[in-house]
Amino acid sequence: MFDISFSHTDLYQISMAQSFFLKGRAETQCVFDYFFRKLPYEGGYAIFCGLSELLQLLEKIRFTERDLDFLKEKGFDSDFLAYLKDFRFRGTIFACQEGDVIFPNRPILQVEAGIAEAQLTETLLLNYLNFQSLIATKARRIYQVANGKTLLELGLRRAQGLGGYHASKASCIGGFNGTSNVLASMDFDLPVSGSMAHSYIQSYEDELMAFRDFAETNPNNCVLLLDTYDTLNSGLINAITVAKEMENRDKRLLGVRLDSGDLSYLSKVCRQRLNEAGLDYVKIIVSNQIDEYIVKSLEEQKAPIDIYGVGTSLATAKPDAALDGVYKLSVFDGSPRMKISETVIKTTLPDQKQVYRAIENNGDFAGAEVITLRNEMPPSRMFHAHEARRQLSLKEYQLQPLLHTVMKNGIIDQQVALKTADIARESLRIFEKLPEDYKRFEYPHDYKIGISENLMDKRNTLMHRLKH
Amino acid sequence: MFDISFSHTDLYQISMAQSFFLKGRAETQCVFDYFFRKLPYEGGYAIFCGLSELLQLLEKIRFTERDLDFLKEKGFDSDFLAYLKDFRFRGTIFACQEGDVIFPNRPILQVEAGIAEAQLTETLLLNYLNFQSLIATKARRIYQVANGKTLLELGLRRAQGLGGYHASKASCIGGFNGTSNVLASMDFDLPVSGSMAHSYIQSYEDELMAFRDFAETNPNNCVLLLDTYDTLNSGLINAITVAKEMENRDKRLLGVRLDSGDLSYLSKVCRQRLNEAGLDYVKIIVSNQIDEYIVKSLEEQKAPIDIYGVGTSLATAKPDAALDGVYKLSVFDGSPRMKISETVIKTTLPDQKQVYRAIENNGDFAGAEVITLRNEMPPSRMFHAHEARRQLSLKEYQLQPLLHTVMKNGIIDQQVALKTADIARESLRIFEKLPEDYKRFEYPHDYKIGISENLMDKRNTLMHRLKH
Repeated sequence: MFDISFSHTDLYQISMAQSFFLKGRAETQCVFDYFFRKLPYEGGYAIFCGLSELLQLLEKIRFTERDLDFLKEKGFDSDFLAYLKDFRFRGTIFACQEGDVIFPNRPILQVEAGIAEAQLTETLLLNYLNFQSLIATKARRIYQVANGKTLLELGLRRAQGLGGYHASKASCIGGFNGTSNVLASMDFDLPVSGSMAHSYIQSYEDELMAFRDFAETNPNNCVLLLDTYDTLNSGLINAITVAKEMENRDKRLLGVRLDSGDLSYLSKVCRQRLNEAGLDYVKIIVSNQIDEYIVKSLEEQKAPIDIYGVGTSLATAKPDAALDGVYKLSVFDGSPRMKISETVIKTTLPDQKQVYRAIENNGDFAGAEVITLRNEMPPSRMFHAHEARRQLSLKEYQLQPLLHTVMKNGIIDQQVALKTADIARESLRIFEKLPEDYKRFEYPHDYKIGISENLMDKRNTLMHRLKH
Repeated sequence: MFDISFSHTDLYQISMAQSFFLKGRAETQCVFDYFFRKLPYEGGYAIFCGLSELLQLLEKIRFTERDLDFLKEKGFDSDFLAYLKDFRFRGTIFACQEGDVIFPNRPILQVEAGIAEAQLTETLLLNYLNFQSLIATKARRIYQVANGKTLLELGLRRAQGLGGYHASKASCIGGFNGTSNVLASMDFDLPVSGSMAHSYIQSYEDELMAFRDFAETNPNNCVLLLDTYDTLNSGLINAITVAKEMENRDKRLLGVRLDSGDLSYLSKVCRQRLNEAGLDYVKIIVSNQIDEYIVKSLEEQKAPIDIYGVGTSLATAKPDAALDGVYKLSVFDGSPRMKISETVIKTTLPDQKQVYRAIENNGDFAGAEVITLRNEMPPSRMFHAHEARRQLSLKEYQLQPLLHTVMKNGIIDQQVALKTADIARESLRIFEKLPEDYKRFEYPHDYKIGISENLMDKRNTLMHRLKH
């Protein structure tokens, strides 16, 4: 795992922390809300990801000697630097479960800590949660149309620099079965796999000889790439020859990979010729500019594909660059705070909060969640945050609280899932409860987020006071 | 700097290396070309970035004990693992200068090494060069329309995970003056700066008190954020009050920041009122969804903005996710290699090569480059790579060779610039020689890439042989 210190932040966090420190307010308790405003990919849901790693990092993150020397050079106050020397995160975090489906404009997580701690954590928290949630959501979109086919993430070479590391992990939480990324596999215990490149074949005078050598030296994990010269007239013929030779050594060719051309047509011809040769066990793997729309189309065409390899579009979340998650102050020193904006939707909700999900009798999600004050009873009615006349009765639903303590005074709660495979499994289980209408790629149904009457009253009173 | 080992790769690189090793071919010398196929942002140029860091990494990169234990677990051959224990990169690299303008479908860099070394370097090389070039190009687009205004990169919170680290550095090579990213500043010696967040102001009962405390605790670097409650009717008035109070202490307010609303209108009103208060030295900084089109528009409107802060669109290269750089075998064991594709443009060029840039008498770039065999004389004519009847005479131009040895047998050449500031300065100098027509955002002029007759002959002969 990469070593991350508190210097992985924006300078202004440290400037503000210094100001709080010098004014004796660094330890004043506050609450920050993490939420986002717009669903990615014009979709109907997002998948929350990055929490486990964030928490593990918060348990151990420090300022290094090198960080402090650098800040000294930049003119920071020496008493403040002495304070940073032993600085650590001792806050409490309420959050929804990693892997849960999440929606815009409602708290996903609340940090409760001294304001210097909360502020020095902001950039890192946003960086981890925004990106990993973005990628897990993209992976889930591919998963939902792949009919249970095996999905491999192959994006490292075109990923946004070191972002490829977390992209591999978040893909697996989204529903991918493995990655080509060795480092991510090692650090997050992800299944790792791969085949061969065109260059391997080109390094031989002849494709058949290249296939033979590769099969001999990778007998248990042999996938042959077919399109270096001519997929059907050369690659496939040579692969069948080598597969039969492997059978003579009691080995089995694992698969063939198609990396260009019409993947639907080519996969059908390959499947037929492989089967005719008695090689029905050889898997067909496709790669090359795959995304959720290509997978959906190939599946609709009943292309006999066993494994999809997805690179750039997944690892970079193409065509969306970022999840627009923000981190906003909602309590300072026991009193609720909010930000007013001329853009009404950007006005924030004050105070410590809870979110309840409405559940149907059959266990499915009803498509509504209500944000309440932290300790009020689950309400029987919810209100549109900015148009109070729009209301929804919650009486017929079960209300499930979504935010739980995941870290207490800087220590991770023992109930929190930290293993990628466990988080992924639970995430897929939750996802089944979200009705199909919210999963459509085109014009998905709108999941309703409301607020309780008590929260609305509190917000309105505070807004009135701030405006006058 | 993050510790990077050879496990930062795709598994198939290690599988292929094992195969080469077991067949006694691991040390066979080969050449790989790095090039890309499509200019990002529908622009007319790209900026080459990431070389200095790649070279520094190649000098020291190894397999760690942990890597080797992991590969052992995955079933790799024990002799091969013993070989990897002392494995290092000892190859030679020819490349154009970091910061140079680059164009599609011509070599930017060639790696000459034993094939195991060249292959084990591929993923890392692509990851570094693709992403950093993508970001440097985005930054340059903003730079070219900013009329020399100060540019700050602020993207870490919405960057693609750890990708934000290299985004900050590449932005500065592209023409940015600094970043908010403390870690990147420390590692790449970039100017670092920042102001304050809304939360700082919200933590106070009152904006004026917040401004006063911040000014007192950051007297030499004080930028006040104006839009927490009301930019003109509260923020600006309080900032002017505090600026005048600072003057009484012989301090100067550095700037005010606008983070929402109509930045053209607001900056004009702020400038006027600041000047009326005798605060013409206070700078106006804007942020909030800035990209090259917004900067261009604000400059055309003559908005009196001193500093642009650019976040998400820069750090994530929005709307482009990736540069499509590839790494293709062009020589193996002394003999030229190429990949044929049914998509003609994807057919590669064999052999060791050089690239010459056509230069006008006045030193400007003529908009044409010719790819030749490495050791042939600069040619007097170039040919379209796939339509030989399209030719261009090069007689009237000076031809400047672009590829030079930047690493020899694993050691960086002493002439290579490694400091970000040096690379940035040189990059901006080169950029001045590229005529404006190639820099337009809409339908930029097409920079011509041709091949020499000798290279064309060699390619055609080899293609003929491979097809028959």
